[in-house]
Amino acid sequence: MGKVFVVGLGPGGPGEITPRARQALTECDLLAGYTTYIQLVEGLFPDKEQLATGMFGEAERCAKAVQAAQSGRRVAMVCSGDAGIYGMAGLIFETAERQAALGKIEIEVIPGITAACSGAALLGAPLTDDFAVISLSDLLTGWPQIERRLAAAAQADFAICLYNPSSRKRKDHLWRACEILLQYKDENTVAGLAQNVGRPGESMRLLTLRELKECETDMFTTVFVGSSKTRVIGGRMVTPRGYRDV
Amino acid sequence: MGKVFVVGLGPGGPGEITPRARQALTECDLLAGYTTYIQLVEGLFPDKEQLATGMFGEAERCAKAVQAAQSGRRVAMVCSGDAGIYGMAGLIFETAERQAALGKIEIEVIPGITAACSGAALLGAPLTDDFAVISLSDLLTGWPQIERRLAAAAQADFAICLYNPSSRKRKDHLWRACEILLQYKDENTVAGLAQNVGRPGESMRLLTLRELKECETDMFTTVFVGSSKTRVIGGRMVTPRGYRDV
Ligand SMILES: C[S@@+](CC[C@H](N)C(=O)[O-])C[C@H]1O[C@@H](n2cnc3c(N)ncnc32)[C@H](O)[C@@H]1O
Ligand SMILES: C[S@@+](CC[C@H](N)C(=O)[O-])C[C@H]1O[C@@H](n2cnc3c(N)ncnc32)[C@H](O)[C@@H]1O
Repeated sequence: MGKVFVVGLGPGGPGEITPRARQALTECDLLAGYTTYIQLVEGLFPDKEQLATGMFGEAERCAKAVQAAQSGRRVAMVCSGDAGIYGMAGLIFETAERQAALGKIEIEVIPGITAACSGAALLGAPLTDDFAVISLSDLLTGWPQIERRLAAAAQADFAICLYNPSSRKRKDHLWRACEILLQYKDENTVAGLAQNVGRPGESMRLLTLRELKECETDMFTTVFVGSSKTRVIGGRMVTPRGYRDV
Repeated sequence: MGKVFVVGLGPGGPGEITPRARQALTECDLLAGYTTYIQLVEGLFPDKEQLATGMFGEAERCAKAVQAAQSGRRVAMVCSGDAGIYGMAGLIFETAERQAALGKIEIEVIPGITAACSGAALLGAPLTDDFAVISLSDLLTGWPQIERRLAAAAQADFAICLYNPSSRKRKDHLWRACEILLQYKDENTVAGLAQNVGRPGESMRLLTLRELKECETDMFTTVFVGSSKTRVIGGRMVTPRGYRDV
């Protein structure tokens, strides 16, 4: 039976690819995914056939991967970070349904370290308490829905982790998001940027929510906005949970 | 200089410990953490000295780990899943601050695959769109705050991932949480349980939010409640994000 592995590669470096993910890449006979992500692993598997889809978008890439699995092949669809968080896992299930391939192929989702976790580790410990994960890309979710979620998360004092803070087309998403957050959160709320985590140019920066609003980010940055409890401790962003037992 | 590594071990199996985490465990000369988590790795490092804190709670364990680092030792504080998500990373920073050890010891947080990601992968792809992570433990966060966050997340149609759905003392947290979610979410909303992920007895189950309310879970379960878009596709829990480009 053909199979699609949807594989989360973690933030970028080989040190954060799990043995299970590596095993799937070893087992597969076809490597699929966005070129940037394939480049993260092709050095480790130089002889592996690649599904050449440089020209195609996500949906077409998933369609070809499921087709290949239907013809009996074992395909690894690679994603950065986790396979399910703004990754390809959902689309592979949807595509298999569309192609009436459910039950005819196997689908295995292999989790990876998502940017919320790798970025948080770089910054310190901003997500130790309840948090919300929101993408600022409005390609698949309408902007009014994104605004509603930002407001709800801020009102309930969640720490907030923002993916896709900047797109090529729109530069003002982060600015608008901060406007909304500032309606409910103090302007001195601790915020943090984690950029190119696990890749060349890795960097982090702490700032206030007010400063964040005026900040330019890029597509390789994950943004963290603290809860009301979040503090700077030793130059790191930390949301304390308190001492349980002393 | 002494050092504390705060290490996320992933869900439980050796296949999901990253090379970076393993490297830290190799480098350290003292292994600390909750006994259950130490047991996950002591087989891999049988000769490593352990900080014997079976009798102590989290705060005391962190205090001893930071003290050991102050005397020049390299300590690995292990956590299940990710080191920062309801893990020890925050408490290590707080403890270092208390002991005036900031700057005198190094602290490195090594991320791991959190239960939201490993559980989601087992269930399918429930977290492909914006989501909120909420712990139902009221040891460190008051129950009214938890209720407020549940309501906010449900109102804004987040998918929701619940950690610590059941404690030894209170059996009705999940029931009460579902009551609140049902005020805003349809009773047929798709929900899922991921139990003992990556460990013996691993299992998953799909159900409706109405059924979830009557469900008994345990401390080794992570609970997923879908957004209004979440569907069952081929026996898996999937939140579609839609086709971007066909
Ligand atoms: C399409 S999403 C993919 C997310 C990925 N599946 C994950 O779980 O991390 C792309 C966004 O993820 C975040 N991201 C992914 N990799 C990153 C990295 N190495 N450093 C910082 N942010 C990253 C950024 O916010 C970026 O805009
Ligand atoms: C104190 S929290 C620790 C979370 C951990 N740091 C993480 O990132 O996954 C414990 C809760 O995490 C979830 N959890 C941890 N490991 C799990 C596993 N292997 N399978 C299912 N749920 C798990 C359960 O909800 C459990 O009650």
